Amino acid sequence: MLDFKIRNVIEEDFIKISQVAEYCSPMTNERKSIYHLFTKFFKKTSLVVTGNGEINGFLLGFISQEDPESSYIHLLCLKHAFRGQNIASNLVDEFIKIVSSLGCRKVFLICKPNNKAAIRLYTKIGFSSLQSDETTEIDGINVFKDYDGPKDDKVVFFKSI
Amino acid sequence: MLDFKIRNVIEEDFIKISQVAEYCSPMTNERKSIYHLFTKFFKKTSLVVTGNGEINGFLLGFISQEDPESSYIHLLCLKHAFRGQNIASNLVDEFIKIVSSLGCRKVFLICKPNNKAAIRLYTKIGFSSLQSDETTEIDGINVFKDYDGPKDDKVVFFKSI
Repeated sequence: MLDFKIRNVIEEDFIKISQVAEYCSPMTNERKSIYHLFTKFFKKTSLVVTGNGEINGFLLGFISQEDPESSYIHLLCLKHAFRGQNIASNLVDEFIKIVSSLGCRKVFLICKPNNKAAIRLYTKIGFSSLQSDETTEIDGINVFKDYDGPKDDKVVFFKSI
Repeated sequence: MLDFKIRNVIEEDFIKISQVAEYCSPMTNERKSIYHLFTKFFKKTSLVVTGNGEINGFLLGFISQEDPESSYIHLLCLKHAFRGQNIASNLVDEFIKIVSSLGCRKVFLICKPNNKAAIRLYTKIGFSSLQSDETTEIDGINVFKDYDGPKDDKVVFFKSI
């Protein structure tokens, strides 16, 4: 078991976060300024996994500006050595604890239909794939066609908290 | 004078916004899912310029989750035909009206030091470039070296509202 701690981000974490994100294909790696937005303006709902003097993973999220009861996980990623040890699940738990205390009742996130590791993780920790008139069920998961534009299908996961 | 209106975004605007952004170099064009985040979760503080049945420009912004008195303009862009007619200034005014009514007292934004058109615009409408120990003055503008990572210098503009 690796030694790790979870803490809220500080502004200068954004460069190390972008380095960790390089290990997270097929998750998208953002340009650095997007990570910077989270570490500057969404500190309360963005977390890093520390250990060994390094940043080894992160969860970047926010509360919807339109609906204060809805929160959103934008990206979650761990270095390979930190996977398979419930750390991702701990990150999500910590996020849920924070947003619950701020009045949220739901968490949303999206992932690519080919990101099987993410789909396994979120299903295991109690997320459901959102079903609607616009979704097609593929391997038991509801997929929105062209959700983020042409040929960019996505799964929308949600959990009541 | 072109006929135009400014309205808040609706979720499905994100694809047309990403098309307008193609005309906005040297401003960065995001992947579509980032535009989608704004049109879904930050509707109140994100605007489009309509006219001729098209979307001709946009301003995407939010209120800081850390400081409810600070707002942030992430991207602002107009198609070429809509420039030079105070429409950008109208967009910023509308944004300021909205965030003021929601309790904000400051607007921030960043831009690249080589984006002379943006620097002219924001200076003209009363923004100042933030000065600190980390800035260097270049052509009368304070520039943060490596603000968004190595070799990614930025100007941080702000305005009290």
